[in-house]
Amino acid sequence: MTPMFEFTLEATSGPARAGILTLPHGTVETPVFMPVGTQGTVRALSPADLRAAGATLVLANTYHLHVRPGEQVVEKLGALHRFMGWDRPLLTDSGGFQVFSLEGFRRVDDDGVEFQSHVDGGRRTLTPERTTEIQWTLGADIAMAFDHVVPGGADGATARDALERTMRWLERCGRRHEELKASYDATSLRHTSAPDDHVQRTAVASCTQTLWPILQGGTHLELRTEGLRRILELGTWTGLAIGGLSVGEPKAVMYDMLERLEPKLPAIPRYLMGVGFPEDLVAAVERGVDLFDCVAPTRNGRNGSAFTPDGPVNIRNAEHREDPRPLDATCDCETCTTFSRGYLRHLFMAEELLGLRLLSLHNVRYLIRLAGEMRAAIRRSAFGPWAAEWRRRYLHSGSA
Amino acid sequence: MTPMFEFTLEATSGPARAGILTLPHGTVETPVFMPVGTQGTVRALSPADLRAAGATLVLANTYHLHVRPGEQVVEKLGALHRFMGWDRPLLTDSGGFQVFSLEGFRRVDDDGVEFQSHVDGGRRTLTPERTTEIQWTLGADIAMAFDHVVPGGADGATARDALERTMRWLERCGRRHEELKASYDATSLRHTSAPDDHVQRTAVASCTQTLWPILQGGTHLELRTEGLRRILELGTWTGLAIGGLSVGEPKAVMYDMLERLEPKLPAIPRYLMGVGFPEDLVAAVERGVDLFDCVAPTRNGRNGSAFTPDGPVNIRNAEHREDPRPLDATCDCETCTTFSRGYLRHLFMAEELLGLRLLSLHNVRYLIRLAGEMRAAIRRSAFGPWAAEWRRRYLHSGSA
Repeated sequence: MTPMFEFTLEATSGPARAGILTLPHGTVETPVFMPVGTQGTVRALSPADLRAAGATLVLANTYHLHVRPGEQVVEKLGALHRFMGWDRPLLTDSGGFQVFSLEGFRRVDDDGVEFQSHVDGGRRTLTPERTTEIQWTLGADIAMAFDHVVPGGADGATARDALERTMRWLERCGRRHEELKASYDATSLRHTSAPDDHVQRTAVASCTQTLWPILQGGTHLELRTEGLRRILELGTWTGLAIGGLSVGEPKAVMYDMLERLEPKLPAIPRYLMGVGFPEDLVAAVERGVDLFDCVAPTRNGRNGSAFTPDGPVNIRNAEHREDPRPLDATCDCETCTTFSRGYLRHLFMAEELLGLRLLSLHNVRYLIRLAGEMRAAIRRSAFGPWAAEWRRRYLHSGSA
Repeated sequence: MTPMFEFTLEATSGPARAGILTLPHGTVETPVFMPVGTQGTVRALSPADLRAAGATLVLANTYHLHVRPGEQVVEKLGALHRFMGWDRPLLTDSGGFQVFSLEGFRRVDDDGVEFQSHVDGGRRTLTPERTTEIQWTLGADIAMAFDHVVPGGADGATARDALERTMRWLERCGRRHEELKASYDATSLRHTSAPDDHVQRTAVASCTQTLWPILQGGTHLELRTEGLRRILELGTWTGLAIGGLSVGEPKAVMYDMLERLEPKLPAIPRYLMGVGFPEDLVAAVERGVDLFDCVAPTRNGRNGSAFTPDGPVNIRNAEHREDPRPLDATCDCETCTTFSRGYLRHLFMAEELLGLRLLSLHNVRYLIRLAGEMRAAIRRSAFGPWAAEWRRRYLHSGSA
């Protein structure tokens, strides 16, 4: 089989990196921002919108799709790509973050997590094996290992406990993932001449899935360093996620942790989970991160808050009432090339659905363009000056 | 000035007619279905969606835009076309239907209607002159005269009273519309070499507006016949609307009224206001109607109800859970060419915004395609057999 997972580092500018990630459903230029399609849809946006916004990689939530409609339904409808009408690369998280952060009953032991479904209140259990199987069934290009996430301020003992559990779970995820691949390869041979096109396509999507580990350890550098060493000892990975940051700790703590971890990270793609806002993307790329996901662009968009090069704009403000200018004069999205701020404000004041979509679309496009600008700056070995200039305008200050 | 309003009758098939309506912002093939953009946006759809759905003429509500954001704001943002990002023909209603049907305080006298704004509860007054001025300011291709609408079951005296008032108001609307055109022509000469492009464009849009009368008379044929005669005596019109139907009376009563009015109608475009469902469009085209508007496709779409050639489908039904088929296999819209029924059901069960949009888009496309199919059947002089076949499938019966 031809290699389906490849990462080529094209340029660096200090710790900042520009690369090309090859996945079964296409290539992804890094740094990259992934829009979040929690329930198999990026809220208010269609796949055509996402393509128009330049999205190359989309995240979907395993927890949510497991609870509703259930991975078996997604499989019957042709697996996740076909289900949501997205033919470019997909990444699924493991559900770890959700079962540890959503409200309601939760019981953790070494086997896994028993939790309460937010849809029907029923008790369910996720284990490393189950989440690996669910993600295999969904068939995203990249699956994530099941992890134990602790809050930002967790003490050393708590963070150590979660790290140890995450490490044991990683081994089990890796083992189950290998079994599924092996069993697929066997099945695949039997299916070679199968007349049912649909089964073939679904299976092919799954067989080329890769699994990424998640580094935990809270805000404790020694735990993070040890965790990283142990992850790399466990096997060869095609990528690595940094979890458990941006979960309540001060931003400076997150930036500092990334800066100290960076020299120890292997060259593989580095994915900072759940981040973030424009200033976080710039700070993290500056510290060697390649991939990001966050609901901020869509959630803020639905609240009427838009990213612009001069900082966030609240479109509900009365000052926009008769403003004929676009939301962001530098932006090429449908929202900015078609509508005035005055019209967008009207949509929000009149509670029109189109407003939610237009601001979500712009914010997603904004973060994707931001990642693209960073990539270009890295390729011309000028990330530092670019970042300083960007901050001067966005934060109205030269430093952050 | 070149004629901006022209209607060419291309073919007939019994009373059913196929024509071309030329308007300042483009041509419209009839029969035509107009999506309704109540607050300057067709709910959940963008102008690009509407173009993709084949919409050529969109309706916006004068009452709603007057109340919020106010016609002065729309004017400052470049008038209605530019405000809502729609460069094809627009029609504005007069607000008559809204002030007579929305809840809250209302006082009618010969001067006009005092009513309560649904947005801030404040008292406002609409008169024939005011609604004509507001519509002139909005700048749609077609404006409607202010009318007094009575409920479907209104007795003869009530319907007579409303008809008389509607006739007096029509004269005042026509007079005010002529004054505005004359005053524009004078202004226009002064502006010929104006450096401000924006002012020019807005003004040009308004100067080419036409005004259509609305025939009232409830369910009383003699009142309708008299009203029609008096409207035609009042002047030469570029189109004629039939109001006050589909407001609570039985459908058979509406169909019968259209059938009896049809031989008396002039050749100009005939617009049946607020209609309707697929079966109503077919029945009304069969009785000589050319234009329609209705919120049904978007409202029903948001409720999970979709038009299909085999009748309405409720996408929430459990039977669609694992259904890989499109909503409507004959449809070319984004919804039907991209997504399965199972996915669409998931979007509704998970309360995702994309579901509202995808079903609205399909339903609008469905009615526009339906109008196009009727047009084609008329042009090949085969409307009767086409309608019988359509009903056999849609209503599962050969007659309606």
